[in-house]
Amino acid sequence: MKDLEACQEATLHLDRDALMALCHRVLIHHGFSEEQADALGGTLVAAQLDASHSHGIYRLLGIIDTVRKGGAVADAVPEVADVAPGVVRVDAKGGLSPCAFERGLPHLVTKARDAGIALLAINHCVHSTALWVELERLAEQGLVAIACNPTQAYVAPNGGKQPLLGTNPIAFGWPYPSDAPFIFDFATSTIARGDIELYRREGKAIPEAWGVDRHGAPCSDPAEVLDHGAMTTFGEHKGSALAIMIELMAGPLIGDLLSVESSEHDEGRLGLPYHGELIIAIDPSRLTGQASPAHMERSELLFDAILGQGARLPSQRRYRERARSLEHGAEVSLALVKEIEALLV
Amino acid sequence: MKDLEACQEATLHLDRDALMALCHRVLIHHGFSEEQADALGGTLVAAQLDASHSHGIYRLLGIIDTVRKGGAVADAVPEVADVAPGVVRVDAKGGLSPCAFERGLPHLVTKARDAGIALLAINHCVHSTALWVELERLAEQGLVAIACNPTQAYVAPNGGKQPLLGTNPIAFGWPYPSDAPFIFDFATSTIARGDIELYRREGKAIPEAWGVDRHGAPCSDPAEVLDHGAMTTFGEHKGSALAIMIELMAGPLIGDLLSVESSEHDEGRLGLPYHGELIIAIDPSRLTGQASPAHMERSELLFDAILGQGARLPSQRRYRERARSLEHGAEVSLALVKEIEALLV
Repeated sequence: MKDLEACQEATLHLDRDALMALCHRVLIHHGFSEEQADALGGTLVAAQLDASHSHGIYRLLGIIDTVRKGGAVADAVPEVADVAPGVVRVDAKGGLSPCAFERGLPHLVTKARDAGIALLAINHCVHSTALWVELERLAEQGLVAIACNPTQAYVAPNGGKQPLLGTNPIAFGWPYPSDAPFIFDFATSTIARGDIELYRREGKAIPEAWGVDRHGAPCSDPAEVLDHGAMTTFGEHKGSALAIMIELMAGPLIGDLLSVESSEHDEGRLGLPYHGELIIAIDPSRLTGQASPAHMERSELLFDAILGQGARLPSQRRYRERARSLEHGAEVSLALVKEIEALLV
Repeated sequence: MKDLEACQEATLHLDRDALMALCHRVLIHHGFSEEQADALGGTLVAAQLDASHSHGIYRLLGIIDTVRKGGAVADAVPEVADVAPGVVRVDAKGGLSPCAFERGLPHLVTKARDAGIALLAINHCVHSTALWVELERLAEQGLVAIACNPTQAYVAPNGGKQPLLGTNPIAFGWPYPSDAPFIFDFATSTIARGDIELYRREGKAIPEAWGVDRHGAPCSDPAEVLDHGAMTTFGEHKGSALAIMIELMAGPLIGDLLSVESSEHDEGRLGLPYHGELIIAIDPSRLTGQASPAHMERSELLFDAILGQGARLPSQRRYRERARSLEHGAEVSLALVKEIEALLV
């Protein structure tokens, strides 16, 4: 976070090729295979172009740190298993998730087209995904999709006081024939852990809704929340229920870890979470046949009515940032680039 | 609602058979087929035994009213279409949803077992479902499931000011080998519409988070919210995104109506919503094979940790009420029973 702050000073504008080259150089230097570097770099660069600094090339620092600590296998070769007509599993073999996703993607698409609905379970991966980037790939193929994963135990269930649930993101993608897909992607915690850390660093009080103290009471002291209490889920008992659903579906259902088990697996290394990921894809044309494009277009009624009353669509900001990045290059701080380049020596 | 209030005075305790007989008599009297009456009665009685008064036999009043106004087909014969290896559609033909669910259920189970994951789309049904009752049926078969449906346009998207989204419930069911299933079922609106109506009737202010006025500002006047503004989604922009997902998936994806289209279809009759419903079922044993029971049992770790820190599990209250109902009979007000019996003359 210190680097992120310092970087406000000087900003570079890097195009897609320059970002990709930087990722590739660093990853290959640290023992990543070409395939792993391509997949992981592609995800980080896509997030950076969308101005998601937390999911962009900043992640290289944490990824290399995790690899150095033995928490991720740089040159893992993911293994695909076709386990049922509607299910494909990919064992990431301790590698980063994007490469496992790439290997599973064509199988997921084929199965969704054949059966109407299909499930991709990624197992034993180290988290480095931006779920919306993956769902765009499915939307490009005309598939509706939901994705989710646990993380590590940071969040208390509603009414509780101890870290148990992950920040557990869930994302949804909707292909939209005449425009870019509708995609949302959010954590089921009230706020990102990094935001609470920033408040602690600055000695500021956090809004009480963000966390609880060791007794389960709403708490405005970031240190108490991070060290003795827990973060909260968004939306009280309803958000908490969703976070539990994600734990179960992208955990035991697919034979992988709960967030609390992932924390144990980390053994205090503070590496990136090791866990599973679940993606469900649905082919609208297998539901409504030739009428499917007309039905899908009806979503325009909803989107127009949302925008028409002054509300926003989740994907809007991302697409605006992406257009700007593609024209002028993505914004990256000079300090961050220097820090990433330092990984090369 | 007047009846619900009056009913506080005298309370009957009716067992399952008595409740079922009452439902059956009323429904047959109003032209329901045996099959429709059995399915619908079964759902209402299950909800009543769980002490869900809003989803229990109280619904008979609204259902018969909707049938009388021509808004539901009492003796509809749902039609099952096997449209893809992982997809079954049931056309409810304008009837109530439980009968269509019953017809689709065995196909959904078979497909989930065969393909690992399957989808049931119910189309053209009149809403009378308790999603948790349906998901229990799937959990009994060892299947993990998600269900959702739109309703009618009552809720503004986050940041908006006009009714557009439904109260859009979402439910999740998790079979738990050694105990009753874990099931949640909640509306994506902050609160039920009926609760806001109750505040209006009593001339009380509502919490500002429940609704917005015609300008989109938080509003404590229930009349302004109901007549000129809109209800809110839970969890701000995240809950709003989920409500939109439900509109799309249980609407255009399955070739059925958005909530705002369902409201138009109602043409001011104020009948029960006419729409679609989506259920996705997953067979854990097709994901992890023989290891599946052991993985599913790991959820106990999570449930125990939730209860151990003083938080609650969504299903707990329901199971407690059910046990009490099965022992002593379900509580029903005498006034409500009288009002239901008045439907017989």
